[in-house]
Amino acid sequence: MNRSVSPAELAQFLFAPRSLAIVGQSNDAGKTAGRPLKYLRQAGYAGRLYPINPARDTVLGERAWPSLAALPEVPEHVYVVAPTDPSVEAVAEAGRLGVKVATLLADGFAEAGPQGDTRVTKLRTICAETGIRVVGPSSLGVVDLRSKALITANAAFDEAELPAGRIFAASHSGSMIGALLSRGKARGIGFAGLVSVGNEVDLSLGEICTLTLDDPDIDGYMLFLETMRNTAALRRFAITAAERGKPILAYKLGRSAAARELAVTHTGALAGEDDIAEAFLAACGIARADTLDGLIEGLPLLQRVPVANITRRMAVGVVTTTGGGATTAIDPLAMRGITIAPPSTETLARLKAAGIDIKPARLVDLTLTGTRYDVMKAALDILTTAPEFDLILCVVGSSARFYPELAVRPIVDSAGAGKPIAAYLVPEAPQALAMLSRAGVPNFRTPEACADAIAAALRRRTPVPVSSWPGSSRPTTTSLSSEQQDVDARHKAGHDAGRLIDELEAYELLKKHGLPCAPSLALDASIATAPALPFAYPVVVKALSTELAHKSDAGGVMLNITDGVALVAACQRIRENVAAHGHNITRVLVQPMLAGVGEVLIGYRVHPDVGPLIMVAMGGVFTEIYRDRSLRLAPADLAAAHEMIAEVRGLATLKGFRGKPAGDLDALARAIVALSRLAEDPRVLEAEINPLIVQTEGVAAVDAVVRLA
Amino acid sequence: MNRSVSPAELAQFLFAPRSLAIVGQSNDAGKTAGRPLKYLRQAGYAGRLYPINPARDTVLGERAWPSLAALPEVPEHVYVVAPTDPSVEAVAEAGRLGVKVATLLADGFAEAGPQGDTRVTKLRTICAETGIRVVGPSSLGVVDLRSKALITANAAFDEAELPAGRIFAASHSGSMIGALLSRGKARGIGFAGLVSVGNEVDLSLGEICTLTLDDPDIDGYMLFLETMRNTAALRRFAITAAERGKPILAYKLGRSAAARELAVTHTGALAGEDDIAEAFLAACGIARADTLDGLIEGLPLLQRVPVANITRRMAVGVVTTTGGGATTAIDPLAMRGITIAPPSTETLARLKAAGIDIKPARLVDLTLTGTRYDVMKAALDILTTAPEFDLILCVVGSSARFYPELAVRPIVDSAGAGKPIAAYLVPEAPQALAMLSRAGVPNFRTPEACADAIAAALRRRTPVPVSSWPGSSRPTTTSLSSEQQDVDARHKAGHDAGRLIDELEAYELLKKHGLPCAPSLALDASIATAPALPFAYPVVVKALSTELAHKSDAGGVMLNITDGVALVAACQRIRENVAAHGHNITRVLVQPMLAGVGEVLIGYRVHPDVGPLIMVAMGGVFTEIYRDRSLRLAPADLAAAHEMIAEVRGLATLKGFRGKPAGDLDALARAIVALSRLAEDPRVLEAEINPLIVQTEGVAAVDAVVRLA
Repeated sequence: MNRSVSPAELAQFLFAPRSLAIVGQSNDAGKTAGRPLKYLRQAGYAGRLYPINPARDTVLGERAWPSLAALPEVPEHVYVVAPTDPSVEAVAEAGRLGVKVATLLADGFAEAGPQGDTRVTKLRTICAETGIRVVGPSSLGVVDLRSKALITANAAFDEAELPAGRIFAASHSGSMIGALLSRGKARGIGFAGLVSVGNEVDLSLGEICTLTLDDPDIDGYMLFLETMRNTAALRRFAITAAERGKPILAYKLGRSAAARELAVTHTGALAGEDDIAEAFLAACGIARADTLDGLIEGLPLLQRVPVANITRRMAVGVVTTTGGGATTAIDPLAMRGITIAPPSTETLARLKAAGIDIKPARLVDLTLTGTRYDVMKAALDILTTAPEFDLILCVVGSSARFYPELAVRPIVDSAGAGKPIAAYLVPEAPQALAMLSRAGVPNFRTPEACADAIAAALRRRTPVPVSSWPGSSRPTTTSLSSEQQDVDARHKAGHDAGRLIDELEAYELLKKHGLPCAPSLALDASIATAPALPFAYPVVVKALSTELAHKSDAGGVMLNITDGVALVAACQRIRENVAAHGHNITRVLVQPMLAGVGEVLIGYRVHPDVGPLIMVAMGGVFTEIYRDRSLRLAPADLAAAHEMIAEVRGLATLKGFRGKPAGDLDALARAIVALSRLAEDPRVLEAEINPLIVQTEGVAAVDAVVRLA
Repeated sequence: MNRSVSPAELAQFLFAPRSLAIVGQSNDAGKTAGRPLKYLRQAGYAGRLYPINPARDTVLGERAWPSLAALPEVPEHVYVVAPTDPSVEAVAEAGRLGVKVATLLADGFAEAGPQGDTRVTKLRTICAETGIRVVGPSSLGVVDLRSKALITANAAFDEAELPAGRIFAASHSGSMIGALLSRGKARGIGFAGLVSVGNEVDLSLGEICTLTLDDPDIDGYMLFLETMRNTAALRRFAITAAERGKPILAYKLGRSAAARELAVTHTGALAGEDDIAEAFLAACGIARADTLDGLIEGLPLLQRVPVANITRRMAVGVVTTTGGGATTAIDPLAMRGITIAPPSTETLARLKAAGIDIKPARLVDLTLTGTRYDVMKAALDILTTAPEFDLILCVVGSSARFYPELAVRPIVDSAGAGKPIAAYLVPEAPQALAMLSRAGVPNFRTPEACADAIAAALRRRTPVPVSSWPGSSRPTTTSLSSEQQDVDARHKAGHDAGRLIDELEAYELLKKHGLPCAPSLALDASIATAPALPFAYPVVVKALSTELAHKSDAGGVMLNITDGVALVAACQRIRENVAAHGHNITRVLVQPMLAGVGEVLIGYRVHPDVGPLIMVAMGGVFTEIYRDRSLRLAPADLAAAHEMIAEVRGLATLKGFRGKPAGDLDALARAIVALSRLAEDPRVLEAEINPLIVQTEGVAAVDAVVRLA
């Protein structure tokens, strides 16, 4: 019905429309629906502006139009600030008229139960039938500070002066774009644009950000995420941004169960466990900030530490005029696992030669040398050329407040050094912070935001390119709306979708993927004499059935069977046990009893939000209690597998702990990689090996559950 | 030689001296030693001021005096800003002249190795011989903003306007008093005084704060702690402050091992593990902030939540105009274990009756109702009278920046409500924050500081009174310097001080203190026939010796001995095993094999920094890996013991986990209390029961190590 627009056109209509209608514009600038016109005029938006209000001739002193149809042209962008149901009608009318993009303020959709679901369906139908693209609903707007298109009802944009910067911000929360803007302004952090993506019924956060990737005036991205939604588009955006060298820093709500629960009621979105979101963001090369100020203040640092320069072991050197003040930043850095490196003997010697005679310690503490320009400058010259450091953190004490020339100016004068410098000023020192910002030195107002941003910057990895991730075969022109519908459907189907295969079939499938499995033999469960076994006694005998997910609980497992007579008896006993639980089995599985240094659980599943995932965990009760597991998006490579092993704290017991022999962690890593490669087999929904026995040489699966689509 | 002064006199000399000499005052106000005179004059200090500089007639345009002896009077306070060794001489001279208190800037003492130790000894001798009291060394000064006694070299005090407030701050770090002052000023948080206590060679942080407890213009305390030092004085101060209703909020460095290591090199102090500091502060009723802004912004909240009102289960209600913004505060609150309570059905009904129709959720989200004064005020009126909440957190979105009348004013107008309200404003909103501060509403600039302060406020407990803690029999007039020397000596003696008693004696001692122990029988290790046992087989046989700390490692333990013949063989075998490790034993210990639901480790020790401690932990490898333990100062009461059990995550396995029977946690709690009461027995340095078997009814110690003084 409606020719589709190119991404470049869509971007222009969204962010720099030459004509803009505001449906539902109120005459009361104090009301939410009264704000957009006020802010647009205040900012000096130069496009043609059409306030639409059928009840009035004028709004805020301007001519008001009765309807979209009555306008002298089809506007490039329509901001709908009317109530819920009239809003849907307005989008439908806009679509019919050939409008290409609408931003929708109203709520009452994804978060509003069955009635809301009906509205979502209606909106999606309008989009599909007319080709109009929608931002929202529940969007507080789209803002471009270059074009002065302040298409927003967010009260924080009632701002006299809004200088444009080079960051683009996207947020699930509408209020937060006001927080990012205003807090950023106070810190000299400026934005090219900001978008409140709302419920993403049509255009997703990832898609909208992708539209800005060709913008040469955008250097980096700040994301405020409430949920993991439309992850395919987000990942595609992130990977492309990484290819363009544009860093992304995200704050993701939901570390706590309480916050995840709220995300569901507040946004109508699904909420996964936090370590899944963490694994997803890491795989996308998106840095994650834990603190709000870390998000706002962190991007300049990410830009100074390109992801390509990051190795697995980055070391921070710290120089300070205040030992106590510096330690307030070192403490949270160390808690985040960041290495604070002491200066090398050679660096100490160079410092001494420059008159800076300090004690060997993890900190270059200039307190005793005196707070002087020449001392700090000489120290920075030496530290920024010392090979043991990848980043220098400079912490300045009380002098920063009134005497920035002493210890802050030398940082400014070292801004072009070969190594990135971050600065944290211990006192309240707005002038000195502004001086640092002007010089492009990443600077922080709290030790926690400083540590948070440094950790976020140093922990990121180059994401794997789009071409090599599962699902990339899917045509990229797929509508993301339908992609999202797929995800919803998969989620609603739940974890019990698909069908279990029996343990023997599971081993066959796993062996094909290169996983070492214990030798297995299926026997008729009603044998009267034991056959010769291809392996030695003692053995374990297990009920073989796809019905019995928890065969131990049903008495379906007998260990340490030492001879043929006991084997026959075990078969009989298992048949009786599982029959008592209402199951009839015809076969049992026999395996040798394998001993090892320890046991782990490795699992694969297709997660409804983020797709294929691989997990390593300590099996049993301690995983449940200590949440001791490591996750990655699948497939994972050998380096990632080794990282995962290092992240599971309990696996320290397999490294030759307390005199025990060490387990074969290389074989474990290979098994993790092999299991993660199930991502290449679309039939497999889930596969869990619990336990995988880790031996001094090799590993072996001794139980497996596999679920196919 | 010198009459000692009363605490009230000492306080006056310290904070409001009528005469003050500055030894080493430089003529260059840009130098550290040039600052004190400048800041004192700038602030309008009204006392008699004597700059001392033997090399000059004038400094900074004032008459300079050649020496303390040349002054026309004995000054009440001397600030020594000279280099290290001349400083010691100046203190000695001041002492001889009858000066009562000196503050000492120089470093080169506790942190400076053997040469520094010699200087420390010299200073202490001067104090002991002359009666002069010393703040420092390494003190950046003592500041009283009422008397304008800015006795400091901290550059942040070069401040035109320094209004006095009602908080007293004490810091191990000198730079941090400048940070607290300047950051506090920017937040409307004012100080009565601040002190940089330096190395506490004489006057300790706790003693200095104690001197201010009678000051009616001081309402609360802010502490910046780098180490746990002089803990007896700190605890005494804290308990007295609690009795006076003056809250204390502390920031303590050293959550990370890296920071603890730095504290040692930086301050020459000892550094214990962080959970020990945490237990100590909690026992003192000192709230602990994790973030620097939480420290600076948190005291007003502590004042609104008196410790006497705090129960074990405090619930926070959250009301907001921004769901996403509120969740940024809820996430860190929930991660700190704070309960965010949903409104009750009754409260929801009251809200609905007031026109606020919200979905039942953990958050009172007014987004859909609109950001209006009447809505927020009505919501606050209802929430502050709802019995399910102990504190209301109000999170205001973008409107706070330019329209504080909408949702911030109603908070101000509810400041006198029956329940404390805390406010976090999501955008940058300095005017609204100032409005809240003026109204006395605790307000926060970041969600993390907000959550941190709320958690710190709600987690504190009334400390046990001085009279009931061990060591209170010690006369309170004891010089704290010598107390500290005792601690140092104990620490240097290390954990191996004292003497082990054998396992049988250990059980005797523990049983006397009410701890259930497994029945035990000592036998001659060279028996040829087994005697009748007072308990049934199977039994365990163990080498009985005070020499063998790790008897299992030496083959000194044999389990599951089923009859007399095996018992005799086991005795023989154990003798041989331990002989092969170089030990000769004459006796073994025999105990029945006890089964239980699980095993725990409980331990008692006299810690060199904080005194008697009780610990509960999962035994074995998982304690080492997951650091899963809970600590309290000893003695602990039954309520504390139950809290400790709840804090050890692994003990979930004893609560009827996965169908297993539940262990007798009441008996475990009684055992913890009993072990903690060893604090009343000064002979015992350390006692560890590992494991204590937890049965379905009762508990029993099956191994014990006790070390006596």
